[in-house]
Amino acid sequence: MSRFFSEKFTDLEAYVPGEQPKDQQYIKLNTNENAFPPHPAVAAAAEKEAQRLHLYPDPECLEIRKALAERLGIRPEELVMVNGSDEVLNFAFMAFCDQHIPAVFPDITYGFYPVFARLNQVSFREIPLLDDLTVRVEDYLHAAGTIFLANPNAPTGIALSREQIEEILQANPYNVVVVDEAYVDFGADSCIPLIREYDNLLVTQTFSKSRSLAGGRLGFGAANPEIIRDLETIRYSTNPYNLDRMTLAAGIACLEQDEYNMNNCREIIRTREKTRTSLEKLGFAVTPSRANFLFARHPDIPGETLYRRLKEEGILVRHFNAERIRDYNRISVGTGEQMEILIRTLEKILQGKA
Amino acid sequence: MSRFFSEKFTDLEAYVPGEQPKDQQYIKLNTNENAFPPHPAVAAAAEKEAQRLHLYPDPECLEIRKALAERLGIRPEELVMVNGSDEVLNFAFMAFCDQHIPAVFPDITYGFYPVFARLNQVSFREIPLLDDLTVRVEDYLHAAGTIFLANPNAPTGIALSREQIEEILQANPYNVVVVDEAYVDFGADSCIPLIREYDNLLVTQTFSKSRSLAGGRLGFGAANPEIIRDLETIRYSTNPYNLDRMTLAAGIACLEQDEYNMNNCREIIRTREKTRTSLEKLGFAVTPSRANFLFARHPDIPGETLYRRLKEEGILVRHFNAERIRDYNRISVGTGEQMEILIRTLEKILQGKA
Repeated sequence: MSRFFSEKFTDLEAYVPGEQPKDQQYIKLNTNENAFPPHPAVAAAAEKEAQRLHLYPDPECLEIRKALAERLGIRPEELVMVNGSDEVLNFAFMAFCDQHIPAVFPDITYGFYPVFARLNQVSFREIPLLDDLTVRVEDYLHAAGTIFLANPNAPTGIALSREQIEEILQANPYNVVVVDEAYVDFGADSCIPLIREYDNLLVTQTFSKSRSLAGGRLGFGAANPEIIRDLETIRYSTNPYNLDRMTLAAGIACLEQDEYNMNNCREIIRTREKTRTSLEKLGFAVTPSRANFLFARHPDIPGETLYRRLKEEGILVRHFNAERIRDYNRISVGTGEQMEILIRTLEKILQGKA
Repeated sequence: MSRFFSEKFTDLEAYVPGEQPKDQQYIKLNTNENAFPPHPAVAAAAEKEAQRLHLYPDPECLEIRKALAERLGIRPEELVMVNGSDEVLNFAFMAFCDQHIPAVFPDITYGFYPVFARLNQVSFREIPLLDDLTVRVEDYLHAAGTIFLANPNAPTGIALSREQIEEILQANPYNVVVVDEAYVDFGADSCIPLIREYDNLLVTQTFSKSRSLAGGRLGFGAANPEIIRDLETIRYSTNPYNLDRMTLAAGIACLEQDEYNMNNCREIIRTREKTRTSLEKLGFAVTPSRANFLFARHPDIPGETLYRRLKEEGILVRHFNAERIRDYNRISVGTGEQMEILIRTLEKILQGKA
C-alpha cells in the first residue's frame, strides 16, 4: 500500500480470480469457461471491426441492445450493456446500496459480492444456506436491504425456481432484488420474463459462459427502464465507452449464431450429467448443479488435498477455503474427453496409485 | 430516476460524450479521434485472438505490460492497464481522494473530473485558468488535495513543461499529482521519466489518440510500484478482467508498429500547424495547442452559432457551454483533405454565403 491510499480502503481485500498458470498446460476446469470456442463468425466480425478502431465505439450500444432485446423478447430500453456481468453487479451495489441500505446475500455465494460491498463502503448481511447448501426462501422475505441472489448459485450450482424468486420479489417491494444469472442457460429458469411485472427486479447475465465469450467481456442487465436509467447514469459517470468495437461486433455475431451456443449448452449439460454419475460411482457427493460446473466432495479425501493431487496430475479445479465448503471442489464441465481424463485420474488418486 | 436510486446520487450528472450522430455522414472533428486507422497488423492480431474468446483474458495483462514497459523504458510493475484512461482516472479518484482529501483541478479542463468527484462523493476545488487559458503553476504549489492536471490541457491544448510539473510535484510531497497525458504524443513532454524520482506522481495515458485505438479501449497508468499496487487493488475489486483478449492483442500489435503511429502523430502535427495558420488568416484566435485538436474563437461569430452552422454544412466540431469558453469551438485535427474542406466551409460561413 502506498502512503497515499485512502484510509477507507485499508481493509479492502480484492477479489482473487481463478488461477491462470503460465508454467505448463493444464486441463483447465477451474474458471467455468465454456468447453467450446465461439462460432467462427465471431472472429470474422471482430476482425472487420478492428479496422475501424481509430473511431470511438457507440456508447449507447444501440445495435447490440436491439439484437439482444429481440432475442430475449424485451425492449432495448430494458437493457444495459456492460464489460462482463461483474461490472453491472458493481453498478448495482453503487446505485441501490448505501449507508442506509445494506446488501443481503447468502453466506456461500459468488465471492465478489462482499468485495463489491467493501469497495462501496456498504454494510452487508450474509444469510447462511441450509445444511444441504440450498437457499431458504423464507430468509429473504422482508430482507430490509438490496438482495443479491446468484441463480443458479455459485459455487453450488443449485437453482431456485422462478416461482421461489417471485415470492422474494413480492415480499420486498421497497428493495431491489438482483438475480445474477451468469449460469442460467445450463438448465435453470431465467427471471427476465418477470421484469415488466416487478419494478424492483434486476436480472444480470453474461456472454462469458453459455455464449463462449469469457475472453470478450460482455454482459448485461435487464430490468424496467427506470432501473436501467439509474444504471446508465452510473455507467456514463464511470466509463461511457466501457465496450470496445470488437466486443460489440463479437456479441452481435454471437447472437446471430445463438443456435450454435444453445447446442453447446445442451452438450455441456449432457456431459455434466454423465460426469455426475461417474463421480457418484466413485463415492463423491455432488450437489444438483444447473450450471456448467459440478460441486463435489469425497468422504475419504479432504478438498484441498484432492485439489493439490489433481494439479500434480495436470488438472486444475477450484478449491475455496471457506469453512463450510472446505471439503468440496468446484469442477468446470469441459469436453467429454477432458472429463474422461478427470474421472480416470480421480480413480487413480482414490486407489492411492497417483 | 427509479425510486430505488441511492439518495447520494441525486445530484449526479453523468458525463456527456461528444455526439455520435447516426442520421447522416459528417466530417467528424468533434471527439479527437485519430485521422488514421490502426496499422493492418492490429486487425490481424485481433482476429487471431478472437478464436479463443471462450477463455478468460490474462487479468495480470503481463504480456502487454512487458511490451509497453520496454517501449517506455520502465518496468512492468510500474504500469497498470485499463479500459481507456478514464478508468484509471476514476481509480485515482477512488484511491487517492476521500472525505479528508479533496480533488484539485483547473476550472477549465477535462469535463469528466467533476463527474468522477461527484460519483466518488469527493469534494473538489476548481482553480481558474489565467485569462489566456494557461495554468498558473503557483496556484498548484501546496494545493492540499490530490491534483489532476491534463497535460496538454483539454479543451485548450495548452501544455505545461516537464519542469513546471516538477515544481508542482516538489511542492506537494504529501499528495498525489495525477498528470493526464491523453494528448502528450502530439508535441508535449511526458512526465513518465519522473516516476522513479517522485513517489507522488501518477501519469495516465491512452492508446485512443496517438495510437488510433479509441474504439479498442486501452489506457494505462505509470507510477512507482506502490501507487500501482493501490490501483491494482481497486482494479481487482472492481473488474479484474477489464481488458478483453482482442484489446490486449490489438495493443501489443500496435506497440510492435509504433513507428507507424508516431509517423501519423507527426503528420497530424503538420496538419494542425497548417490549419492553425489558415484559421488565423480567417481572423480566428487559436490557442497554442500541443494536442490533436485546435481551440479557436472568432470575433465575429458566437461559438455556438459557428458550431451549428458547421453542423448544417456536414462538419461536426465540439462546443462547450461553460461561461469562460463559450466563444470557442474545439476542432479535432483530421486528414489534410478534411481540414481543407473545413477551411473552405468556414470561409463561406464568415462571408455569409453558407
